[in-house]
Amino acid sequence: MQAPVLAPVGQIAWTANGAVRYLDQTELPLKEVHREARSVEEMVEAIQALRIRGAPLIGVAAAMGLAAAAAQAASDGDLTRRWLRSAAERLASARPTAVNLRWAIDRMVACAETRLAAGGSPADVAKGLRYEAQAIWEEDAAMCDAIGAAGVGVIPGGAAVLTHCNAGALATGGSGTALAVIFEAHARGKEPRVVATETRPLRQGARLTTWELHKAGIPVTAVVDSAAAAMLGRGGIHVVITGADRIARNGDTANKIGTYGIAVAAHANGVPFYVAAPSTTFDLSLESGRRIPIEERSENEFDAAPGVYRYNPAFDVTPARLITAFITDKGLIRPPFEEAIPATIGQAAQQMRGS
Amino acid sequence: MQAPVLAPVGQIAWTANGAVRYLDQTELPLKEVHREARSVEEMVEAIQALRIRGAPLIGVAAAMGLAAAAAQAASDGDLTRRWLRSAAERLASARPTAVNLRWAIDRMVACAETRLAAGGSPADVAKGLRYEAQAIWEEDAAMCDAIGAAGVGVIPGGAAVLTHCNAGALATGGSGTALAVIFEAHARGKEPRVVATETRPLRQGARLTTWELHKAGIPVTAVVDSAAAAMLGRGGIHVVITGADRIARNGDTANKIGTYGIAVAAHANGVPFYVAAPSTTFDLSLESGRRIPIEERSENEFDAAPGVYRYNPAFDVTPARLITAFITDKGLIRPPFEEAIPATIGQAAQQMRGS
Repeated sequence: MQAPVLAPVGQIAWTANGAVRYLDQTELPLKEVHREARSVEEMVEAIQALRIRGAPLIGVAAAMGLAAAAAQAASDGDLTRRWLRSAAERLASARPTAVNLRWAIDRMVACAETRLAAGGSPADVAKGLRYEAQAIWEEDAAMCDAIGAAGVGVIPGGAAVLTHCNAGALATGGSGTALAVIFEAHARGKEPRVVATETRPLRQGARLTTWELHKAGIPVTAVVDSAAAAMLGRGGIHVVITGADRIARNGDTANKIGTYGIAVAAHANGVPFYVAAPSTTFDLSLESGRRIPIEERSENEFDAAPGVYRYNPAFDVTPARLITAFITDKGLIRPPFEEAIPATIGQAAQQMRGS
Repeated sequence: MQAPVLAPVGQIAWTANGAVRYLDQTELPLKEVHREARSVEEMVEAIQALRIRGAPLIGVAAAMGLAAAAAQAASDGDLTRRWLRSAAERLASARPTAVNLRWAIDRMVACAETRLAAGGSPADVAKGLRYEAQAIWEEDAAMCDAIGAAGVGVIPGGAAVLTHCNAGALATGGSGTALAVIFEAHARGKEPRVVATETRPLRQGARLTTWELHKAGIPVTAVVDSAAAAMLGRGGIHVVITGADRIARNGDTANKIGTYGIAVAAHANGVPFYVAAPSTTFDLSLESGRRIPIEERSENEFDAAPGVYRYNPAFDVTPARLITAFITDKGLIRPPFEEAIPATIGQAAQQMRGS
């Protein structure tokens, strides 16, 4: 039996000597450059510079990075509880908005604590972390496939699907979230056509989403972000599917800046608006989107006239009432979200803890 | 008495020998490069390449370009009715969406025809065209001032005003349309703050609007286009003012791509949305926005992955129901627009014809 392709475009992998090999997404689409991270610092830099991005993938990558650094620390004789906590905190706080990052690191720390409490050696702990990171990765890839299967029904045959930013393989450890649904529709012969927004300032839509879809043989058209509303207004789009960086208990959703504007325009024009995300993107500790921390990035990500301040929030929050349904690894979640999200995701989380 | 400053940032002028001198807007904000156009071809190129842009300014510039070329043709012995018609058609069709361009050229042709019918010499015709172009320019500058005065009341003291693309001096023969209102509010001590959207793909907001406002000492913040909706959703914007490229009889308004999305988000959040434009931007021959031709520009204006098609409409149409009022040189025009626009603009047009 062939091993499953966890990372279909080589977005992440282990090297033979236990470091993390990743595709540097800042170089795409013109160059496919792979880099390696073994230390916490190298992984934090890769995540902060968006060489590795996408809420699920930064969770997977941070876990793998922690495992790689722990193996090194173990062989250097540095793998203490203090080292672990410091390494975990630096990784977990590399970026603030995506909840998957902290979720993955919390899980890694819990794994290490269990081994340490049981008197495990540093080598034992490092080995455990490597297994745990591998499990996080494999589960993420499996969730992508489940999202694809859960969402394929929302895409009518021959539909034009609009997506924003990149919620593809490059954003996950597997085949993607929003794009997993599109890949699945394509595989089932539904012949979806995709409209990808450029996604300023760093152009993840124009650089990454078009690259993934074109590679997969799926027809894709790029537009500037501000053309999305006009296309929705003219009836050229049948369904919108985006990813998410954090989803509150009531369904309010943080995602790449611009998602809210697309959701408002979709709503005004009667176009269904779906959010595709794994269970790990839901944050049941937040009642609403109001308290989701929104990362403000460097003003150097885009230019204006010299001396002019540039305000650069990386995300916005789309209120739950503009969202038709969530496409998750646990199936579709439809309104009323206040009940359906805790029922579906909370139960799943309990099952995970129990298993 | 000092001559009025027709073009406050030197966006357009006559040279001593009768050619048109213009600020090449594609070089801003880093370089202030002035170029000259004397022939029809040179002016068409400048307009198509967006060295000269903005609905009112391309009308003024095309008229001045026709006058400059006619003077040359007269001295070369080429200034015939056939030459005139061909030159006029090439200029009028340089760009399709802004109605000011055809309006200005039609007026120039009517002027020439009158002189030709009266047996005027080529030198006479050329002189008449120069006077007519100058009149179009001066009237445009006067309309800018009138727009500023008419609109200043819509900006509350200390307000945050969002504008899209560039509707400033660089878009007109005078002080601007949307920005004329902001300049006037600033002059009256209302201390407006401006949020300027980047305006992809060619970044007129980030390059030109921030340059003009910063030069004028007005606080301005640049954001990517897709941040506009989030700012409107969070209550950070008190009023939106944009320019227009063509306004139909019922108030439907073509303007830079992205205007519709901003209007939808403003409406959804109860933020007033104003369109500032001179009388010459209204096209009473069109019942609605449905028949406004929308220019599709080269896909090379932005990048995607190699081989991916880029759809690049330069404008969209905002339905009249999303517009709070029009700020014009004839005063504010409020709904119901179907009655108010023909009453205000139609009457003005009649007066112009009669004068």
